[in-house]
Amino acid sequence: MANYARIKSTGKPKVVVIGGGFGGLELVKALSTAQVQVILIDKQNYHTFQPLMYQVATSGVEADSIIHPFRKVFEKQENFFFRLAEVERVDTEQQLVETSIGLVRYDYLVIATGATTNYFGDAQMEQNAISMKSVTDAITLRNTILCNFENALQLDDPEQLNSLMDYVIVGGGPTGVELAGALSELKLHVFPKDYPELDFQSMDIHLIQSGGELLKGMSPEASQKSLEFLEKMGVQVLLNRRVKSYDGHTVTLTSGETLTTRNLIWAAGVTGNPVSGLKPESLLRGNRLQVDEYNRVAGYDNVFAIGDIAAMVTPENPHGHPMLAQPAIQQGKLLGKNLPRLMAGQPLEPFHYHDQGAMATIGRNKAVADLKLFGKEIKTQGFLAWLIWMFIHLISIVGFRNRLMVMSNWFWNYFTYDSGNRLIIGNKQENIPIKETITHKTVL
Amino acid sequence: MANYARIKSTGKPKVVVIGGGFGGLELVKALSTAQVQVILIDKQNYHTFQPLMYQVATSGVEADSIIHPFRKVFEKQENFFFRLAEVERVDTEQQLVETSIGLVRYDYLVIATGATTNYFGDAQMEQNAISMKSVTDAITLRNTILCNFENALQLDDPEQLNSLMDYVIVGGGPTGVELAGALSELKLHVFPKDYPELDFQSMDIHLIQSGGELLKGMSPEASQKSLEFLEKMGVQVLLNRRVKSYDGHTVTLTSGETLTTRNLIWAAGVTGNPVSGLKPESLLRGNRLQVDEYNRVAGYDNVFAIGDIAAMVTPENPHGHPMLAQPAIQQGKLLGKNLPRLMAGQPLEPFHYHDQGAMATIGRNKAVADLKLFGKEIKTQGFLAWLIWMFIHLISIVGFRNRLMVMSNWFWNYFTYDSGNRLIIGNKQENIPIKETITHKTVL
Repeated sequence: MANYARIKSTGKPKVVVIGGGFGGLELVKALSTAQVQVILIDKQNYHTFQPLMYQVATSGVEADSIIHPFRKVFEKQENFFFRLAEVERVDTEQQLVETSIGLVRYDYLVIATGATTNYFGDAQMEQNAISMKSVTDAITLRNTILCNFENALQLDDPEQLNSLMDYVIVGGGPTGVELAGALSELKLHVFPKDYPELDFQSMDIHLIQSGGELLKGMSPEASQKSLEFLEKMGVQVLLNRRVKSYDGHTVTLTSGETLTTRNLIWAAGVTGNPVSGLKPESLLRGNRLQVDEYNRVAGYDNVFAIGDIAAMVTPENPHGHPMLAQPAIQQGKLLGKNLPRLMAGQPLEPFHYHDQGAMATIGRNKAVADLKLFGKEIKTQGFLAWLIWMFIHLISIVGFRNRLMVMSNWFWNYFTYDSGNRLIIGNKQENIPIKETITHKTVL
Repeated sequence: MANYARIKSTGKPKVVVIGGGFGGLELVKALSTAQVQVILIDKQNYHTFQPLMYQVATSGVEADSIIHPFRKVFEKQENFFFRLAEVERVDTEQQLVETSIGLVRYDYLVIATGATTNYFGDAQMEQNAISMKSVTDAITLRNTILCNFENALQLDDPEQLNSLMDYVIVGGGPTGVELAGALSELKLHVFPKDYPELDFQSMDIHLIQSGGELLKGMSPEASQKSLEFLEKMGVQVLLNRRVKSYDGHTVTLTSGETLTTRNLIWAAGVTGNPVSGLKPESLLRGNRLQVDEYNRVAGYDNVFAIGDIAAMVTPENPHGHPMLAQPAIQQGKLLGKNLPRLMAGQPLEPFHYHDQGAMATIGRNKAVADLKLFGKEIKTQGFLAWLIWMFIHLISIVGFRNRLMVMSNWFWNYFTYDSGNRLIIGNKQENIPIKETITHKTVL
């Protein structure tokens, strides 16, 4: 007999959802009154509000405030079952998901596994760069930034000091721009108070963007203004450059220029994070699963994919929708309506993306927003955009308690020009400066 | 030439403080206007408010709210220098502290290294038990508790299930009592909502105390009432029992009784945490350094010890003061006054302990307090004690921001009968349930 995970059957059709990101969460919610058994499988016991992860990395908010345990979110949803497990593969013949806790049977499978960092096959980069895809990544980056300064105190060689205090951020999308802005604010307002022994004039923040503009996909006004904001804040933006290689110490650009840093943050791209066991032909470029207008994976009747992992090819989106929260949320919601219809033999509603615009924040009172409201396009940059950004993010965070905590933190940071979470938490061995690591020329 | 840590000399006498607990923190504060160079060395970059650590373990408050970065605390103190480093030994001949970042020269040395868990030489216990001395310990315990339930969902063998869901807390002091109470509240109000698939009737919480009463050192009323509170909340208190052995699965008591659990929390004692390099004869029993009434370590002129690590033998305290926050705080404050006097050749003020009483909280509206106010002893148990406990702890937390965060969390938890931080954070490999570990009979 095969080794099944223990999940008591309710006798209702089983909808198994792999991944509790934006898409998975909305889908589960939308199924709350459906006559199904919803089984969510995730390798974390919490949902992460990814848009604020860069603030965890830069000591702006606490990690706990942007993550929310699934069991808490769905406490009152009776058809909801959660399993903390790693998915190994799916067996679409037998309708089984193979997981670290055993086999899970499904009637309908929804793949909502999102995306992962794309190093474009550069193994050396993958080894040496810092990524920003999970809360653990964000805390690691926070620890690294703070440990760097503690280490810097022990150095007198200017080259070593520079390499420790300088930052290179690769990728001029929202993550790169927001991280560069937040780091620059710390450099201006916070670090000099904490480390009066260090000279922060020499702390360089480089932002490297392959194209000619930041925030590609947003309006020219937003791109232009974000560039101005960053440059005013002292960020050195290098446009039309690509990184050729990074050995943990020297960044070589395709232009031939080199930069020296131990801290390269890779925010240059993501790729789909598919599960194994599906037909290879259902995978499109970017490792995304080809789905029809009902988010059904090509070649299957009862396997669906939503969010970043799904590529719904439309005339406007020949490679699928942008890999953002909004398409995931909207697809999750619609699939939650369509699945009961499918079971009842009713016609399904096709997906139409309602693009509500995009925004990014660069610093205090500085954000850019391209909004689409009631059919109108509104472009704004600066203080108003910043207020809108805060408002939208606050109402989007799951859980009233988290909203309260993030808001308190923001108020605190705003009025004190300070941020509270400058804590190095984690493994002792890794964090304490030791003589050997600080004279060694590669990553700490 | 020897390898010195880089700390720019201010030309003032160097007071090197090892450890930023309650004692070290107060000492540094008290030296704020002294004509000295204060160098604080700690292996963490933050002060921990230890009295609330059990609430981090039981999802009551966020770790970030009870820890406070030293650099932030002393941002405005110009004579303050911090170094994140591990102390290896002290060389009192050369007046040097040997650390992971190199040698640090001192004119006056203050050892404030506190205490560590005392396993009384039981290596098996040390390996299998869960301790509660650091924030990392507390987060590990939180992860363990939550992972246990995730794992329990996969079990059907009643013995394995029991061993995973049951808790044995060894030690009926404040930590043991507060932890038992908090776990019991989670069992009553929170876990059944999160895990409707599990039967929490079968979750046993045992508290084992070697003596005949809980909270030894407090009044008989406090001891008696805390026992009543705990038993009313379903905690099984075993008095006059000692643990003979624990193999990670079976707890054997000296009475011959056995209990089955994978979760034994060791809160049965602490021992001093001295630095090496001092004369062996200055160490008293309990690994504490013998100090005179000025906190000067026996046999030295310019080496001091304060807090848990210091044993000041007095008629009332033949083995030194109780290892609590109050003596540490008071010794730190006084030494901060005495050091400048010593340098100026003025007479020193001897230490007198002002015992302000003790308190412990067991649950909602349930605490015990023995207070000494204006020379009067006030004993109270129940709601009033609980309000006093909250008030005292809130005003004692370092930093307004942390106070605000803890208070918000408490309000939230109180009115919602819920606690927000049920998050499993950390290393993936360790936390995800896998088939192999859950059928294996030893610790996860």
